[in-house]
Amino acid sequence: MGGSEEGGEYRDVEATVAPPQLGMYEPLLEKEKGFAIADGNGNGNGNSANGHHVAMIGTKVSPIESLDFELVENEIFRQDWRTRKKSEILQYVAVKWAFVFLVGILTAITALGINIAVENIAGMKFLWTVKFMQSDSFVMAFVVYAGFNVTLVTVASLLCVYIGPSAAGSGIPEVKAYLNGVDTPNIFSIKTLFVKILGSIGSVAGGLIVGKEGPLVHVGSCIASILGQGGSVKHGLTCKWLRYLKNDRDRRDLVTCGAAAGVAAAFRAPVGGVLFAMEEVTSWWRGPLLWRAFFTTAVVAVVLRTGIAWCKQGHCGLAGEGGLIIFDVSGVQDNYGLNELVPVVVLGLLGGVLGSLFNQINAKIIMWSGGWLKKKGKFAKIAQAVIVALITSICSFGLPWLAKCRPCPDHLTIPGEKSCPSYGRAGNFKNFHCPDGYYNDLAGLFFNTNEDTVRNLFSKGTNGEFEFSSLFLYLGSAYSLALLTYGIAVPSGLFVPAILCGATYGRIVGMVMGMFYKNGPIDEGVYALLGAASFLGGSMRMTVSLCIILLELTNNLLLLPLIMLVLLISKTVGDCFNDGLYSLHVHIKGIPFLEAHPPRFMSHLTARDAITRPLIWFSKVERVGAIVEVLRSTNHHAFPIVDNDEQSGKPVLFGLVLRSHLLVLLKKKQFLEDRYSYAEKEQSSLVSSAEFAKPGSGKGLTIDDIELTAVEEEMFLDIHEVANTSPYTVVETMSLAKAYTLFRQLGLRHLCVVPRTSEVHNITIIYAYSEHCRPGVR
Amino acid sequence: MGGSEEGGEYRDVEATVAPPQLGMYEPLLEKEKGFAIADGNGNGNGNSANGHHVAMIGTKVSPIESLDFELVENEIFRQDWRTRKKSEILQYVAVKWAFVFLVGILTAITALGINIAVENIAGMKFLWTVKFMQSDSFVMAFVVYAGFNVTLVTVASLLCVYIGPSAAGSGIPEVKAYLNGVDTPNIFSIKTLFVKILGSIGSVAGGLIVGKEGPLVHVGSCIASILGQGGSVKHGLTCKWLRYLKNDRDRRDLVTCGAAAGVAAAFRAPVGGVLFAMEEVTSWWRGPLLWRAFFTTAVVAVVLRTGIAWCKQGHCGLAGEGGLIIFDVSGVQDNYGLNELVPVVVLGLLGGVLGSLFNQINAKIIMWSGGWLKKKGKFAKIAQAVIVALITSICSFGLPWLAKCRPCPDHLTIPGEKSCPSYGRAGNFKNFHCPDGYYNDLAGLFFNTNEDTVRNLFSKGTNGEFEFSSLFLYLGSAYSLALLTYGIAVPSGLFVPAILCGATYGRIVGMVMGMFYKNGPIDEGVYALLGAASFLGGSMRMTVSLCIILLELTNNLLLLPLIMLVLLISKTVGDCFNDGLYSLHVHIKGIPFLEAHPPRFMSHLTARDAITRPLIWFSKVERVGAIVEVLRSTNHHAFPIVDNDEQSGKPVLFGLVLRSHLLVLLKKKQFLEDRYSYAEKEQSSLVSSAEFAKPGSGKGLTIDDIELTAVEEEMFLDIHEVANTSPYTVVETMSLAKAYTLFRQLGLRHLCVVPRTSEVHNITIIYAYSEHCRPGVR
Repeated sequence: MGGSEEGGEYRDVEATVAPPQLGMYEPLLEKEKGFAIADGNGNGNGNSANGHHVAMIGTKVSPIESLDFELVENEIFRQDWRTRKKSEILQYVAVKWAFVFLVGILTAITALGINIAVENIAGMKFLWTVKFMQSDSFVMAFVVYAGFNVTLVTVASLLCVYIGPSAAGSGIPEVKAYLNGVDTPNIFSIKTLFVKILGSIGSVAGGLIVGKEGPLVHVGSCIASILGQGGSVKHGLTCKWLRYLKNDRDRRDLVTCGAAAGVAAAFRAPVGGVLFAMEEVTSWWRGPLLWRAFFTTAVVAVVLRTGIAWCKQGHCGLAGEGGLIIFDVSGVQDNYGLNELVPVVVLGLLGGVLGSLFNQINAKIIMWSGGWLKKKGKFAKIAQAVIVALITSICSFGLPWLAKCRPCPDHLTIPGEKSCPSYGRAGNFKNFHCPDGYYNDLAGLFFNTNEDTVRNLFSKGTNGEFEFSSLFLYLGSAYSLALLTYGIAVPSGLFVPAILCGATYGRIVGMVMGMFYKNGPIDEGVYALLGAASFLGGSMRMTVSLCIILLELTNNLLLLPLIMLVLLISKTVGDCFNDGLYSLHVHIKGIPFLEAHPPRFMSHLTARDAITRPLIWFSKVERVGAIVEVLRSTNHHAFPIVDNDEQSGKPVLFGLVLRSHLLVLLKKKQFLEDRYSYAEKEQSSLVSSAEFAKPGSGKGLTIDDIELTAVEEEMFLDIHEVANTSPYTVVETMSLAKAYTLFRQLGLRHLCVVPRTSEVHNITIIYAYSEHCRPGVR
Repeated sequence: MGGSEEGGEYRDVEATVAPPQLGMYEPLLEKEKGFAIADGNGNGNGNSANGHHVAMIGTKVSPIESLDFELVENEIFRQDWRTRKKSEILQYVAVKWAFVFLVGILTAITALGINIAVENIAGMKFLWTVKFMQSDSFVMAFVVYAGFNVTLVTVASLLCVYIGPSAAGSGIPEVKAYLNGVDTPNIFSIKTLFVKILGSIGSVAGGLIVGKEGPLVHVGSCIASILGQGGSVKHGLTCKWLRYLKNDRDRRDLVTCGAAAGVAAAFRAPVGGVLFAMEEVTSWWRGPLLWRAFFTTAVVAVVLRTGIAWCKQGHCGLAGEGGLIIFDVSGVQDNYGLNELVPVVVLGLLGGVLGSLFNQINAKIIMWSGGWLKKKGKFAKIAQAVIVALITSICSFGLPWLAKCRPCPDHLTIPGEKSCPSYGRAGNFKNFHCPDGYYNDLAGLFFNTNEDTVRNLFSKGTNGEFEFSSLFLYLGSAYSLALLTYGIAVPSGLFVPAILCGATYGRIVGMVMGMFYKNGPIDEGVYALLGAASFLGGSMRMTVSLCIILLELTNNLLLLPLIMLVLLISKTVGDCFNDGLYSLHVHIKGIPFLEAHPPRFMSHLTARDAITRPLIWFSKVERVGAIVEVLRSTNHHAFPIVDNDEQSGKPVLFGLVLRSHLLVLLKKKQFLEDRYSYAEKEQSSLVSSAEFAKPGSGKGLTIDDIELTAVEEEMFLDIHEVANTSPYTVVETMSLAKAYTLFRQLGLRHLCVVPRTSEVHNITIIYAYSEHCRPGVR
């Protein structure tokens, strides 16, 4: 019965409430025109719209769907709730806690594994290279060095391009989008997890200016999501206990804990992890979640601690020291005065400007190269990665030759922890090609793993280690390389590049300050830390979580007010220019993310303005053929059920039925002979709520899985039992901004729009529904 | 036209969604019976219900109202939004930031002031007492000591009882309730602020086992709320710029920042402050708020730092040292092993049990003494406070005599920072009545300000300072005194008492551990810290914010995993027995707080079940007399406006009009001659949106302010312009749990319940509304 001929009085909203293509790059007028009329809707341009809704970097074009946090109140679920025993509720709680425990342990172990691998591979690379350098075969040293790098990056990029395209990049934009209700398929698949882990080992050990922190957040979320899918029904690897978790609400809770665990593992910052999750999940935060996320990160902290203690006993090869980043700057300068406010403000401004500039250029590069790479195909992507790896190798090996050899400071020539010069794979005063007793300050920056470079920049009591020229050269190279690198087809985090850039100009500011206040309590390492904070604030625009992460990283609480101030200034300055980096990437990837605030033009529109097409609806008992036809011809994910009022005979809204539930019913084939026989049968016991459990993303039934005979198509299906009889509704005159708030605050996917008065044909209620974001055509 | 005779088809919901009197002390069946039928509703028992809705400790019985975060979409506000210029939006933003800046500065200065006052008064008290003791006039010493204490507490209690009854207690339950939408009048008045500041100086300096931290949170919120009222219209102290803040949304944002500033100032924990606000404000958290709260606490941190530096130069009398609590335990034991998990688990369990027991006993004491005191009147309250002060003085002066004098440890006899014995007002090894070279360990606990005691318990490198017997004696006394004290009519925080108890048994556990692991890296100060964490977790049940506050207090990030573990265990254990302390007090005070989760029985009820009375409604143009009559005879805060459909002639919902808006219109007296003349007039420009700005709590217009002549009562009032034409609605078959979620997530006060089908008289829509919590009778 679907279609416009009979349902003309009903109107349908297929409003993509925040169509991604209406991003920041278009003028407001376009947005207004585009909204809900031209872009987000209509089957006609479904494919072109779809093009926007997939991750650009991925090769497998798959539609993005939205998550649904609404409680479906249909008879079957109500029945299930009523009959649920106390022991089953206990099971549910136990399963939830057991899963976050597992997520914590697995994430921490993965993080340890990645670290051990990176440290060993990169360590070996440096040891070999240094060996050749010490025998003065510099060309050979470069060949070994560059060979290592290019090979590692090529492997990472091959994995990314051919096996898990969703694993490219940091993954934080996708995680952020997921946590706020946008389900990008494949983003949490086992393939992606596998590629993300191996790829990030390759790209980090391969010397690229990338970090493994962003990818670790993605890895944590992946682990959580895979666990949350509750095993594989196909392979019989599931369990009755897990059925409780098979819905979007619980699955998202789990992924939130996974993201928190990822941050906690990446930075050894358990509280920072929880806060990161809280700051990103702004749309649907719940108290108990805080509590579970906290537990997860505590587990991570304990496992990491144990693992690191074990590694320190020498079980992990070259990864005994360092490994998981902790840049200890405690014990310095716990007394600072008002004159230190000047450099803090300067750093904040610098961070805001350089950070937002970074975002802007990076976005442009990705938009431009994205289109170009799409045309050229997979090989071009790999070539791009190889070229970047080669450039990075040339820079990091070649540029240190520009620096003069400097004599070691007297007090450091005695052998010890911080002796000068150092010859090994890590260290502060790299000898590089210099004679004994001399060091190359530029090599200490370039010819190191990124983490060691950060450690050198942050190190205390090393005032005057670097020359201005070296720092400026490094700043320029790191900034450009980071811009080039973020966007190629390897897993790549942005925290470390941001810290590198920020710490470098922080140290420059510190040196300038040192010239003014000769006897002041100034340590360049502290300025490096503040610089890093400013760049992170200017680029990523997180505040509280970044602040805590930096505190936990550096173990110095006394710097808190300074870090807060720097973050405040840099974020404010950055916000004047553009959005935060992750928001930009969410836009670029075409993820239909609902921002916290409705766009201003929405307060001038009403919910009615978002309605465009004729409504497609069903009766409580509907002909099977009609249902199949509608499911085939549309891609809506929910349909209103309209019933005739018994007294007035006029149609009224009965409820909302989900496409996925219809498909389950069609698959069961419990059809009726005619439209009116439903009152007699007693089939509620035949369909259990477990059958409606939501499978993992992309694994659900599709209409193509349903095969029906012609006779069956003429039969009828009773759908009133699976209808959500209390969907959220708004009147059509409600401002769109208010409806938007409802969408976001409650995590809805569908919203019925009800007319205020009966304008047409004396029909009193007109219903429509809108979807959070467009479903895809499978 | 209001009333049941004409509006019989409409039904009214006056459902107190979470009636406070249905607290934890009643069986579930009672709750179900009571819900929405017996208690929360009906004018009939309005007074008796009201009795539950006022703070028990207060003497001024005033009704509790709920806050409304819904965007009112009526024509006047729409007009205002449309015409708002860019400069005005900028003004709005500027005012908001300027205010949180002010809140930060004022809160920090107040905190500094309280600290300086407490340190000076208490310091003087101890100096005098010690002077008498050194001349062996012990009786005189006690008289001075007890006299000081009783006087200070009496003053505090007099202020509390006669001037600001709302200032008694910690204030955190009320702040928590306000942030989640419950507006208790007087809780944020200038009187309350004044009494809270002076009273908490008195009670803390008077030696009671109370803290000033809870009161400081209240003080911060008070300052924010008073600022947020935008000056006084009555005294002409207002400004056009401030009108933007005159609504519940912005005012609550400001109070949130104030609460964060209070915590930040109390503990010098800026991040902890933000997290505290986040953890308590679970119902309606918004991203930008985080950002502003963070700014506020950063301001607090900077001001405090400056102030303390100034004090250290000797400008603040005896308050040079200490003052704002920072218990530095950094530099100890950054290496702990798995064997330390045993005492951590033990501490967690102890904390959970002792903490929840504390809550239970405290609740019983308050419930019992509350009823008794109500009968006896104000004098009894003051007497209670005086008696408690006397008992505390006797304990703290008398009990140390039970301890043996112990010889000073050899390495501490040289004069220095931690010399033994100490004679002054503060110190670790108190000489008390002992001969030279000896100290009294019990005096170090009892005969000190609470903060100094905590500092002694936390102090590192003092293993073996205390004897088991002394610690047990102190634990028993502190626990009992804290139970007695919290609930008397003085401002009293619970953080410090909880830390005192927890640190004491933590130190006991540490000493026991010390006997097993003679050479282990164990410091009793660390155990004291973990013990404090466990008691706080077991009693208050906050997790993330407590964790951060403790970290910021003790400046030792390496203890983080241990603190997290302890908090997790103690909270879990505590949750098995009862609610957190603040939740309990919210219940006891009868504050109609909406918990995060709807009560389980609500999922078995529908929105229809919450409807009880006939609906009272208005037409778009209503007779003035009818409006006045309704406003006088009911205490609803909103009324649906029902319009007749033009075609079918049947009533449909037009919108919702607020009582406060009606009162403004009545005051303006722009009446119409007859019901049909409204189409002609053009009065929209005559009423500006600023006139509808919400005044501070308890200051609004009431119906008694309206005086009308008989002629005017027969005229008509056009109310369609002020009607919110898109109120949130639910169908009557929606489960009550789902409607509850809507209330809480969106911060609503009213919710229209719409029928699914037309059952009665062929009328298609039946409207009703419910109120978040009962309005009071003024």
